[in-house]
Amino acid sequence: MKSKFRHVALFGKYHATVTGGALESSRKVLDDVAQFLARQGCEVVLDKDTAVHTGLSGFPALNMEQIGAQCDLGLVIGGDGTMLGVGRQMASHGLPLIGINQGRLGFITDIPIGGYQNTLAPMLQGRYQIDDRSVLHAKVVRDQHCVFDALALNDVVVNRGGTSGMLELRVEVDGRFVANQRADGLIISTPTGSTAYSLSAGGPLMHPSIGGWVMAPIAPHTLSNRPIVLPETSEVSLEIVSGRYASANFDMQSLAELMIGDRITVRRSEHKVRFLHPEGWNYFDTLRKKMHWNEGGN
Amino acid sequence: MKSKFRHVALFGKYHATVTGGALESSRKVLDDVAQFLARQGCEVVLDKDTAVHTGLSGFPALNMEQIGAQCDLGLVIGGDGTMLGVGRQMASHGLPLIGINQGRLGFITDIPIGGYQNTLAPMLQGRYQIDDRSVLHAKVVRDQHCVFDALALNDVVVNRGGTSGMLELRVEVDGRFVANQRADGLIISTPTGSTAYSLSAGGPLMHPSIGGWVMAPIAPHTLSNRPIVLPETSEVSLEIVSGRYASANFDMQSLAELMIGDRITVRRSEHKVRFLHPEGWNYFDTLRKKMHWNEGGN
Amino acid sequence: MKSKFRHVALFGKYHATVTGGALESSRKVLDDVAQFLARQGCEVVLDKDTAVHTGLSGFPALNMEQIGAQCDLGLVIGGDGTMLGVGRQMASHGLPLIGINQGRLGFITDIPIGGYQNTLAPMLQGRYQIDDRSVLHAKVVRDQHCVFDALALNDVVVNRGGTSGMLELRVEVDGRFVANQRADGLIISTPTGSTAYSLSAGGPLMHPSIGGWVMAPIAPHTLSNRPIVLPETSEVSLEIVSGRYASANFDMQSLAELMIGDRITVRRSEHKVRFLHPEGWNYFDTLRKKMHWNEGGN
Amino acid sequence: MKSKFRHVALFGKYHATVTGGALESSRKVLDDVAQFLARQGCEVVLDKDTAVHTGLSGFPALNMEQIGAQCDLGLVIGGDGTMLGVGRQMASHGLPLIGINQGRLGFITDIPIGGYQNTLAPMLQGRYQIDDRSVLHAKVVRDQHCVFDALALNDVVVNRGGTSGMLELRVEVDGRFVANQRADGLIISTPTGSTAYSLSAGGPLMHPSIGGWVMAPIAPHTLSNRPIVLPETSEVSLEIVSGRYASANFDMQSLAELMIGDRITVRRSEHKVRFLHPEGWNYFDTLRKKMHWNEGGN
Repeated sequence: MKSKFRHVALFGKYHATVTGGALESSRKVLDDVAQFLARQGCEVVLDKDTAVHTGLSGFPALNMEQIGAQCDLGLVIGGDGTMLGVGRQMASHGLPLIGINQGRLGFITDIPIGGYQNTLAPMLQGRYQIDDRSVLHAKVVRDQHCVFDALALNDVVVNRGGTSGMLELRVEVDGRFVANQRADGLIISTPTGSTAYSLSAGGPLMHPSIGGWVMAPIAPHTLSNRPIVLPETSEVSLEIVSGRYASANFDMQSLAELMIGDRITVRRSEHKVRFLHPEGWNYFDTLRKKMHWNEGGN
Repeated sequence: MKSKFRHVALFGKYHATVTGGALESSRKVLDDVAQFLARQGCEVVLDKDTAVHTGLSGFPALNMEQIGAQCDLGLVIGGDGTMLGVGRQMASHGLPLIGINQGRLGFITDIPIGGYQNTLAPMLQGRYQIDDRSVLHAKVVRDQHCVFDALALNDVVVNRGGTSGMLELRVEVDGRFVANQRADGLIISTPTGSTAYSLSAGGPLMHPSIGGWVMAPIAPHTLSNRPIVLPETSEVSLEIVSGRYASANFDMQSLAELMIGDRITVRRSEHKVRFLHPEGWNYFDTLRKKMHWNEGGN
Repeated sequence: MKSKFRHVALFGKYHATVTGGALESSRKVLDDVAQFLARQGCEVVLDKDTAVHTGLSGFPALNMEQIGAQCDLGLVIGGDGTMLGVGRQMASHGLPLIGINQGRLGFITDIPIGGYQNTLAPMLQGRYQIDDRSVLHAKVVRDQHCVFDALALNDVVVNRGGTSGMLELRVEVDGRFVANQRADGLIISTPTGSTAYSLSAGGPLMHPSIGGWVMAPIAPHTLSNRPIVLPETSEVSLEIVSGRYASANFDMQSLAELMIGDRITVRRSEHKVRFLHPEGWNYFDTLRKKMHWNEGGN
Repeated sequence: MKSKFRHVALFGKYHATVTGGALESSRKVLDDVAQFLARQGCEVVLDKDTAVHTGLSGFPALNMEQIGAQCDLGLVIGGDGTMLGVGRQMASHGLPLIGINQGRLGFITDIPIGGYQNTLAPMLQGRYQIDDRSVLHAKVVRDQHCVFDALALNDVVVNRGGTSGMLELRVEVDGRFVANQRADGLIISTPTGSTAYSLSAGGPLMHPSIGGWVMAPIAPHTLSNRPIVLPETSEVSLEIVSGRYASANFDMQSLAELMIGDRITVRRSEHKVRFLHPEGWNYFDTLRKKMHWNEGGN
């Protein structure tokens, strides 16, 4: 039986720092997966950066734009960070993604490389679970102009400079004043990002189907400035009231330096990122393993 | 202009422990509000318990069932606790409620008694904001039979006996195993309850429009057992695995003693509780005042 | 070379619930250790409860009082809970204790049963590290009379009844008013107990040599009621202001039911409990392993 | 009766940004206090920076070194920040300090300007309480050389750059490996600093007489990396394992930029800072007011 997905793009570790033997092994794995996909009846293309970085040849190499326009499925071989990076860039194209992990399984890259064929084969034939994730769309507005624009699948973080004191932020939601917060910074996280930085700052875990963001302060001056879950239909605005060398990070991958008076607005992107999981997958199994909760029960 | 609400029920402090001069003053306030409502063209009835307790006469006294069947609006003069109690009982009737507070304003009883006439008059004429709150429907199942059934507007709390050690609970969501949790107890809270017990246990604040519950462990044995926000469409099941003298509390107002093997299931009630606020009200203003966040801004 | 310790008492799991094959195995281990000690030149006695419970014979069985009076060393085969129980009872006798663990190593029972001979032999010859732990001495005072008196090596916990609301406690330190706290309860913990219940309630870890207690509220109503480290030279007093069915627990092993107006006083015992560890032992190694901190380093 | 303190130094807001009318008012207050001290028989000198900044004349102006060598008492008119700055510089001289606050009372500047004469007069005559505070002595060691050296009365903070990811620190105490911690940073705080940044990061309150520091991670990656109280006799060492643009802050007043491999060592200074309080002062009254704990009592 042929794959339901005709055109499949293959991604390796995105901003890879892999070299030497590890790089060779990485190329071998990609090649192996590509051959497998071809045998399943897929036309395989390589992400251009992946092809250049690993030197893998024998398959067409396309850039992100081309992949988004031409492919039906993306297969990411890497960790959660790589998956987030690809996901963010494919959000506007609606390309569904499957994640294979060579190391310790991640929250979203949940297929182990060992015996991946048995897991992938039924997925290619249409037996999978859909897991859509909300995306944040953030802008930095200075003097009424948008000077920066980015998507985030995990979080938008506004924080103080490393060598300066507390940041003061004026928080508004849908144009209504919430509070002036003084803290090291403020995290606005999706449910996807709720297991990352936000958790370290005291935020709750959030099931992916919750239609909301958590806004979590980092080391807030006022103890009652607790994390708050806001509806994802809201627009959150953070204005830099005081604090030197403040910056905004988007999934810790892109960055904007901020000035007093800058306003960072965050709202839901019109796009979602679609992850595919094997049948039988469920969120709580992954969560329990990654959080090292006792397995109990049996 | 006449009131949009024809039949208005008046509630005083629900399980009142008020006596002496305070009782007299309470009766006077109720009488004053009742007269005001009558002048606005409302037919006023008294909650029977309130009438009996305060000795207020001159208006018909109805029981909860009758009020739910016959009235268009409930006016509660008391604190958040009274409002929650009335709300829970009126949930199945869909009676909208307005809360007047004689003391420190609450999260949901947000109209001060001083000058209440100027605030109420436009509300009676239809100029108000609707604030619908989700309700939890909890059951205790023992040997396949439901032995207890209750609604909660704030939270469902399962906790250990005061003189016994940790409780172990098997947590499932929609029939899927989440974890066995060992803790003093577990709180399942609505957004309404997120400013109450759950907050003390480390849970996040939740905007009322979030379609979710927070499940927050109390003093969990495992540090990674963090509060988690679950979709309100889920059914949560807690089974008592071990722990003596465990009990379940519903809004801290009704109570079930629990045995090993008992299962507490929690899902969304088909009913919502409707609160009415003056025009211009917004959730964040109330939150900022109650949480003592700095007012900043201007 | 002969053991520096002439008279050695052997303790098994204190309030043991062990039966069947596990009991037999437990007796065998105790017998094995006793024979080993005898070969090292020790005169071995058995804790009476241990002898009765396991049916082990061939060595004199003494009660706690007699062991305290006649022995130079106690050897505990069990977990941290057993060690705490023996430690508390031997505190006034100054009997040093060594802990052997048959299962997962504990914070204070840090010698694995496998190959224990190689670890014990040098210790018996005087090559060990001393680890003295402070002990809490708590009293319950009602109508000016002491109605309960107990030692605690981990913590003194005052908490609400399982079926009642918050507890209100008036806290004083050295006769000075600190605050009225409303919470599920209050934990006063030694450094030894700082890895137990107090940690679950948000308290800090405390190095054993810190001369202080941590007082940690459980789910406090006021968010600024944070854990506080108090000097161990202080007397802490907790008075029950309101709350039904309150109780006080001492190491979760003994218990006093409390009434409104009762006052629990906690101060440092004049005794310390002495644990002996193998040379090279250090607190941070144990802490890192038990807390699952990454081992890093090299 | 004459003042017990012969030579008294007067300090205004240290790094003052005060100008215009506020500056004039500040000068007037300093002059008023100086005249009062003279009437009490003191010989008053001015801190040189204070004299230059306010333009106050009529009293000798000395630099910090001279004040430390020649004076018996320092009187600080300002907030906690000013007091910390003066305290740090006077630590090696052992000059006792009294703090007068023109605004909201602080933790250590606890005498209100209104009616200060009635409070100060008995203090000058020897009726006061001594409150000695431990001081941290921190060094930055690079390639075996000390490249930075500073005292801190509140805290030593090592944190990530504002635009970079997590910092990884290798933590050792007295040469023993504790853990590799990944976090935004790490705070080592005195009891004095325990109400400041450390509290925001989740650290406990610490009574000033506790002989210990709290080491509190900021937004740690691993949830079990909890604040830990260490004995003040220990030397703590933090080595930068990874993380760009890391820096170390001392009382948030001086600063060192850090490189991979740098080691920050923190130990107790041989000096203490001595604050004097009016008779009847007690730490818990200040704490309760500043933390907004309910006053309870009656």
